[in-house]
Amino acid sequence: MKEIMAVIRMNMMNQTKSALTEAGVSAFFAVEALGRGKGLVPKDLLDGVKAGSEEAAALLGEKGRLYPKRVLTVVVPEDMVETVVKTIMKVNITGKPGDGKIFVMPVGDAVRVRTGEKGNEAIDEM
Amino acid sequence: MKEIMAVIRMNMMNQTKSALTEAGVSAFFAVEALGRGKGLVPKDLLDGVKAGSEEAAALLGEKGRLYPKRVLTVVVPEDMVETVVKTIMKVNITGKPGDGKIFVMPVGDAVRVRTGEKGNEAIDEM
Amino acid sequence: MKEIMAVIRMNMMNQTKSALTEAGVSAFFAVEALGRGKGLVPKDLLDGVKAGSEEAAALLGEKGRLYPKRVLTVVVPEDMVETVVKTIMKVNITGKPGDGKIFVMPVGDAVRVRTGEKGNEAIDEM
Repeated sequence: MKEIMAVIRMNMMNQTKSALTEAGVSAFFAVEALGRGKGLVPKDLLDGVKAGSEEAAALLGEKGRLYPKRVLTVVVPEDMVETVVKTIMKVNITGKPGDGKIFVMPVGDAVRVRTGEKGNEAIDEM
Repeated sequence: MKEIMAVIRMNMMNQTKSALTEAGVSAFFAVEALGRGKGLVPKDLLDGVKAGSEEAAALLGEKGRLYPKRVLTVVVPEDMVETVVKTIMKVNITGKPGDGKIFVMPVGDAVRVRTGEKGNEAIDEM
Repeated sequence: MKEIMAVIRMNMMNQTKSALTEAGVSAFFAVEALGRGKGLVPKDLLDGVKAGSEEAAALLGEKGRLYPKRVLTVVVPEDMVETVVKTIMKVNITGKPGDGKIFVMPVGDAVRVRTGEKGNEAIDEM
């Protein structure tokens, strides 16, 4: 079992939800976050800050604001991981910085509260 | 050490908080999320979508809305995991779909910011 | 690769963001949470509740309210973990209870949505 955590654009939530449902994943949750990724800070600015440039640090401060993001969390059996990652990528690629990131993390166990079912039984979709 | 992440109903937060405190767990946090679980999408509808039924897809779109949920995160020593899972289950079972799910995940280390204490020392409650 | 999840005070977000950027970490996200840590519940109160004191339980109910917190999530290569933990600690220590906690968790893989880059390539900052 794996947890897949995807940081995506705010306005991509609906189509990501639909794509996941079509791919057979109907259990997930999403939270609103403030985030920043690599693409939003130019490398020369970071280099400048590292080199001790106060001007670069000031600029970085300005550029360093956080953008609203959605963080989507899905827990799936191992054999669904690739499908979920590909599904999320497919609907979220615009080609511009800020398309987001996907993280895959280990899950020890899952329990469905209502029934006490454990493991893949607790997270199966059908 | 384990992270226990529980997706529960919005209105179950207070009693879950009280039950955890009584069980000796006083450190946790909760975020508001939008979520959907298995129980909210009938299987025949999903089957219909998979079979290419546009009618089913339209219905699923309607039914596919997300519900407000609370996601509760607790980090506890290994020997507390069962107690925490049982405590969360006990107060959250209504018997209806939507009671939620509990995930148990590995944690490498914990640090208390104020003191620099690490491991179980950083997360002990008393 | 590790996920570092830090629960910090609401008003510490800006300086933590700046400190992380200066430390070379420019990709992260933050969510708003309600939380409670050890320091906010006196031990004698918890002992009283355990001993069955209704008075202690009532007091705990009052004191048991949750405080707004920020939960910051960063994913970095293994060799950056110590730097990130120290950076977060440095700017968040006030010496009073409620300074927060930092958790380090395993990450199996990361994917940059726009390019499909994986692993450290997906999360490098420069």
